[in-house]
Amino acid sequence: MIIDCHGHYTTAPKELESYRQRQIAALDDPSHVSSKGTLNISDDQLRQSLENAQLKFQRERGTDLTIFSPRASGMAHHIGNATTSLHWSEICNELIHRICTLYPDNFIGVCQLPQSPGVPPENCIGELKRCVLEFGFVGCNLNPDPSGGYWTDPPLTDRWWYPLYEKMVELDVPAMVHVSSSCNPNFHATGAHYINADTTAFMQFLTSDLFKDFPTLKFIIPHGGGGVPYHWGRYRGLAQDMKRPPLGELLLRNVFFDTCVYHLPGIELLLKVVPIENILFASEMVGAVKGIDPETGNYFDDTKRYIDAVPWLSADDRRNIFECNARRVYGRLKTSRLV
Amino acid sequence: MIIDCHGHYTTAPKELESYRQRQIAALDDPSHVSSKGTLNISDDQLRQSLENAQLKFQRERGTDLTIFSPRASGMAHHIGNATTSLHWSEICNELIHRICTLYPDNFIGVCQLPQSPGVPPENCIGELKRCVLEFGFVGCNLNPDPSGGYWTDPPLTDRWWYPLYEKMVELDVPAMVHVSSSCNPNFHATGAHYINADTTAFMQFLTSDLFKDFPTLKFIIPHGGGGVPYHWGRYRGLAQDMKRPPLGELLLRNVFFDTCVYHLPGIELLLKVVPIENILFASEMVGAVKGIDPETGNYFDDTKRYIDAVPWLSADDRRNIFECNARRVYGRLKTSRLV
Repeated sequence: MIIDCHGHYTTAPKELESYRQRQIAALDDPSHVSSKGTLNISDDQLRQSLENAQLKFQRERGTDLTIFSPRASGMAHHIGNATTSLHWSEICNELIHRICTLYPDNFIGVCQLPQSPGVPPENCIGELKRCVLEFGFVGCNLNPDPSGGYWTDPPLTDRWWYPLYEKMVELDVPAMVHVSSSCNPNFHATGAHYINADTTAFMQFLTSDLFKDFPTLKFIIPHGGGGVPYHWGRYRGLAQDMKRPPLGELLLRNVFFDTCVYHLPGIELLLKVVPIENILFASEMVGAVKGIDPETGNYFDDTKRYIDAVPWLSADDRRNIFECNARRVYGRLKTSRLV
Repeated sequence: MIIDCHGHYTTAPKELESYRQRQIAALDDPSHVSSKGTLNISDDQLRQSLENAQLKFQRERGTDLTIFSPRASGMAHHIGNATTSLHWSEICNELIHRICTLYPDNFIGVCQLPQSPGVPPENCIGELKRCVLEFGFVGCNLNPDPSGGYWTDPPLTDRWWYPLYEKMVELDVPAMVHVSSSCNPNFHATGAHYINADTTAFMQFLTSDLFKDFPTLKFIIPHGGGGVPYHWGRYRGLAQDMKRPPLGELLLRNVFFDTCVYHLPGIELLLKVVPIENILFASEMVGAVKGIDPETGNYFDDTKRYIDAVPWLSADDRRNIFECNARRVYGRLKTSRLV
C-alpha cells in the first residue's frame, strides 16, 4: 500500500473561493456581525473536482491513500481575526470530511487549524477535537507563522504552543508544519516562504528541549525538510558546536520529512542523509508545481518515480517510506476503519 | 590558484566588540551626539588574530586567496540608525583594508554596507565607492533584510535598490546576498536566517526582470544557494508554470552559488544540478560551523575536501570552481595588483 502523506484540496469548486471572498469583503464592513454562513457544493461537484485531478493521479501513479487537507496557501491565517479563521477552517475541514466520506479508500483527513496572529494556539483545540473525534481525521497542519511572512508569533518551541501540543499528544495526532500564503512581498509562497518555514522549524527544534517535554509529539516537515537535508552537515555541526546531542537523539524520534522534492538528485540526497525511518512518501499533488519536466517527460510532482529510480533502496526501505513510516507517525491510521 | 570567495573576519581582537558595545550603549543616551570614535588595534594584534585561524587554515587546506569581509552576523543593520551603521561599517571595512594591506597575497576585501531598515540603499554608495576606489575592494555584502528577521524592506528586485545596483555595475563589483544576525526569535542566524535569505533572494530573482534592467549585475548566493539546489526541480517547475524563461536564460548569467555546504552529499548535489560555471569555491571559514565532523575526522567547513572527493569533475571544472569563476564574477580581481 502506498500512502501519500501530503495532499491538499487545491481543486475545490469555485463556490469555495466565492465564500472566502464574501467573508473577506465583510471584514471591511464595520456593521457586519460575522457569521459562518453557508456553502453550497453538491457531492457531484466534489466528485467532479477530484476525478480528473487527485483521483486520476492516484490511479496513474499507483498510489493508494492520500492524507488530505485543505489548500495550504488558502488558509491565510493573517486575514481577519480568530473568528474569521474559525469559520473558514470549519468550512474547509467540513469539505475534507465530505470527501473522505465519499472516497474512504482514497482520502483520510488532516485539518486546517483556526490560527490567527497573536491568538494563543489553545484556541485551536476545539476544531482539532471536532476533526479528530467526529470526522476521524488523523493529523493537523500547524502554521508556524500565522502572520503570513512577518514571523510575529513565538517560535514553535515556546510554551505559547504547549496547550495545543498537549491535546495533540492526547489525541495521538501529529502536525505537519505548514505555512500558508505570504502577505510579505519578500516571500514567494511556494518558492520561498514554504521552504523557509521548513528550515526554520527544524532549527527551532534543534535548539530547544521541546521533545524532552513532549517525548511523543510528532512533526512532519514537508517539502523534503526545506533546506535541511542539503545542509545536513551544517545542522550536525551546529548541534555539535552548541553541545547539543546528536540529531538522532535530539529530534529524529519526533521530526519527520516528506518526499516533496521535485527532481531525482534531491530525492537521492534526502534518502542518503536522512534515516529512512524518518522519511514519509508524499507528492503534494495537485500542488505547488503543476507542469511536466521537459528533462524527463514526467510530472515534476510525480515523486514516486524518483524513489522508484533509486537503486540502492531495499524492499524494506521502500515499504517504510511508502507505508509503514506513515502508519507510525499518524498513529490514528492504525485504528482507522480505512486502512 | 585557489580562491575562497567567502570568508569573514570572525576572529577580530576583543577591542572591536568593545567598540560596538560602546556604540550600542550610547544609543540609549538621548544627549549623545553620535560620532565615529576611535578603535585602537595594532598591526600585531591583527596578525595574531589571523595567524592561528584563517591563515593557518589556508596553509593547511591549500587555499590561496580569501575574498574577505567583516563578520556577517556582526553587521546587525537593525541596530541604531543609518549613522550607527555608517560608523560601524567604516570601522569594520577599515580593519579589512588593513588586513588586506598586511597580507596582500592572502586576502582581498569585500565591504559591509551601511544599510539601515527603511533607509534607501543609495545611502550606501559613498562607503561602497570608498572601499572599492580607495581600498581596492572587489565586492560588497548586501543584506536583503536590514530589519534582522522581520523582512520589512522591499524585495531585492524592487526599484528601491536600483541606485545601488547602478553604482555596482559602474564599479564592476558583485554583491554577495548576506543577511546578518536575527533579532527575531523565530530565526537562528546561521541555521535558519542565512539559509532562508539565500532561498528568498533566488526566488525574488526568478520572479522578476531585474536582469533585463541590469544585464551585467551579479550576485553570489552563499551557503550553497540556501535551499535552492536541493529544490532545483521545484524552481525549474515554478519558472515553467509561471511562463518564465528557463533558469539558464532567466538568471544564471547573473546569479552564482558558493560551495559553503558542509558535507559531501550536499556538495555532490550542488555540482550535479547547478552549471559548473555558476559555482564559486568558498568555505566561510572561520565561520558558522567550527567543529570537526566525527564521521570524517575533518573540519565540517573544509569544503575543498568535498570537491576534491567528487570523481567526475574534470580538471577544467575544478579550475573554474576554484579560480576562474571567481575571476569572472569579481571583475576587479583581474585588474587587482594582487592576482
